[in-house]
Parts: sequence; C-alpha cells; structure tokens
Amino acid sequence: MAASTLIEKLNWRYATKKMDPAKAVPQEKVDQIVEAIRMAPTSSGTQPFELFVVTNPEVRADIRKVAWDQAQITDGSHLLVFAAWDNYSADRIDAVTSQMTEERGELPLLNQYYENLKATYLPREQQTNHDHAARQAYIALGFAMAAAAELEVDCCPMEGFDPSKVDEILGLKEKGLGSVLLLPLGYRQDNADWLLPMKKVRKGKSTMVTEVA
Amino acid sequence: MAASTLIEKLNWRYATKKMDPAKAVPQEKVDQIVEAIRMAPTSSGTQPFELFVVTNPEVRADIRKVAWDQAQITDGSHLLVFAAWDNYSADRIDAVTSQMTEERGELPLLNQYYENLKATYLPREQQTNHDHAARQAYIALGFAMAAAAELEVDCCPMEGFDPSKVDEILGLKEKGLGSVLLLPLGYRQDNADWLLPMKKVRKGKSTMVTEVA
Repeated sequence: MAASTLIEKLNWRYATKKMDPAKAVPQEKVDQIVEAIRMAPTSSGTQPFELFVVTNPEVRADIRKVAWDQAQITDGSHLLVFAAWDNYSADRIDAVTSQMTEERGELPLLNQYYENLKATYLPREQQTNHDHAARQAYIALGFAMAAAAELEVDCCPMEGFDPSKVDEILGLKEKGLGSVLLLPLGYRQDNADWLLPMKKVRKGKSTMVTEVA
Repeated sequence: MAASTLIEKLNWRYATKKMDPAKAVPQEKVDQIVEAIRMAPTSSGTQPFELFVVTNPEVRADIRKVAWDQAQITDGSHLLVFAAWDNYSADRIDAVTSQMTEERGELPLLNQYYENLKATYLPREQQTNHDHAARQAYIALGFAMAAAAELEVDCCPMEGFDPSKVDEILGLKEKGLGSVLLLPLGYRQDNADWLLPMKKVRKGKSTMVTEVA
C-alpha cells in the first residue's frame, strides 16, 4: 500500500511561529479549510459552534493584544475564531431537528431522539453545556488543520488568549457564543521562524499506545 | 486548483451505524490512523492522553454493554479508546520537557516555559485539568477521522458510554487516565445501515460562518 499522503502532510505541518506578512492564503484554499470545518462531525449533529473568518487588520490587531501578542494573528492573512454555543437551548436543538426533517423527511425516531437530547442537556449547568460544545469545536479544529496541511497552508492553533476580551471584540456574547480557539492561517517565513529548523517532537508509540488484544 | 481530495473523503465518511463483522481493517491502515493521532498537535505539546487499541472480543463485548449496546464496538475490527490524563502533574510535564531537551538540545527558554506551565496548571482543580486534557484528545480524534476517511476506513465517534465503567474495564484509573472518546473502526455494511442512504446534513455556510473583513 502506498504511504498515506495525509501522514506526510501532518509531518510537514508545525505550529508556525513566524508567518510571512507578504503572503496571503488564496480564498479558494480558505474556502476548503472552512468546508472541512463545516463537514466535521459533532455530537448528535448539533454543530454547536460558529466560525469567524477575520481578515480585517484592525480587528486582528485588537485580538492580538489580548492573545499574548502572538504575531501570527496579524502576520497571517486570515484568522479563524471558533466560538462555541454558550449553552444548549430548546430553540437551538429544534433548529437541528427541523433542518434534518427538511432534508431527510419526517422521521418519528429522529424527533424522539432530539426530545431525549433536550431532556438531558437543558437541565444541565450552563458551563457543562458550553464545555461540551467547545469539545466539538476541537474536532473541527482537527479537520481544519488536516485540510490546511493537505493544501500546504500553515497555521498555528491557539488557546492562549483572553476569551472574554475576544468575545467583546467580536460581539460574541450577544450571539450566545464564547470563543474557544484561534487558528491563524498563512505561510511560514523561512529563515525567520525559530521553530521551523527544530525536530518535531512526539511521544513514541510505545509510550502513548496500548494494544488490548 | 484541483478539488481537495480530503474534502471528497470527508463527504464520503459518515457515522457508520452498521459495520460488517466479516471485514477487518488491515493492520497497516490501523497503524496509519494511530500515527495520525500521534502526530496531532496538543496544547504546549504535552500530548495529555493515551490511546488503547482494543481488538480483544471479550473486552469489546464488555465495553459495548456500558456504551448503550452500540453494535459497531463489536462489529468493527478495532476499537480505539482515547483516555485523557486525570490531571496534570509535575512528573508528567517534566517528562515532556526531558524528551524535548533530549531531542532538541538544552534550551533555557524551553525550561522556563514549562516551569511557567506547571505554575499555571498544578494549582488548578483536577477536573479543569482533565477537561483541558480531554479537549486535546478531540483534536486527535479529528486527525484520526481524517486519516480513516483518506484510507476509506469507516468509523463512528462515540461519547455515549459510561466513562467510569470503561475505565474499570481497561484499568485506566490506576494509570491516572479517564476515558473520553470511543472510535470503532471497520467497514460499512451496505444495505444494512439505515443511515447510509440518508443525505448528509450540515448547516449551510451562511448559518455557520461569519466573515469579518
């Protein structure tokens, strides 16, 4: 069997520290990365997050200020912000059921499934639900990074920012959202990134993987 | 530009409900999926989870019993269990620093970085740290599913199980781990999966994506 192309690309990628401000990611590549995010699976198909594609320079400069001054936010050409639902609600879950019914036809079992889901989710703590929604965004982050690697677009995933400040900058709270992840997209600046020449470090398979045969 | 192969494969994949018990995923494909997981980026490179590759039929039957009797767990040939660290600890973070130093050479800034990380993580609630570790496993789940799709291996990600029971079955608690995700691998059984003929439902780009230009 031929070696996986994806694995090669996953080896090529790294958390790019220095992006070239002169190189922009073409829109068609950004579109494909966004499409990978849209296709990502989520718990019960609720897709409980939204994506903000920020190109505006002032907005990115503001976000950089509340994200430990990480330069990729403004050196890259696009900043993806993953914002998870602050909570599950009947309206949000009903919208999922409605869309499924519209696209697949009426399915009584489906309605029952989502009624049960509401009975489970709605009484829970808001923080529990936001955390659960946030986890789904992390799956989509994985898809986004795999797609970026395939397209040889660089990126650097970031948790290091003040979520409440980013929420303020993008007006997320009013939308019932909370920022959970940043992903600047751009191109590595060769000879200027301290991390690029360094060996990729990963735990060995024997440390990380146990077979139960 | 040619259409992305990965996007095509992400459209091909679905949460497989009925796997063919007669078809096993070849070891070399499982190895590549595991490799994608090992290559997945994690916060500060700690890789704070372990992976269990369960083929043992009795163990999988036991797990199925505490996972809403989902048939893919035993119909598939391999069950991946993602188990996140129960907590961050000085030992665990020091092991990361040691490996990096070994592979990249002594870097004073690196040592300082991880000392700061310990100062941040170690005083936090155990649950906060476990949740943070769990999120990293979700990125790796995304990589695993992208790799499986590329290789045309089917899978079905699952949060629906009793984590404490799975921990008991695999002896995870003693290892300082807690199960967070299951991913059975196998092959779709055509004509036997109710979900296969159904349209893939995803929110439209206009619902999910906002451009801030």
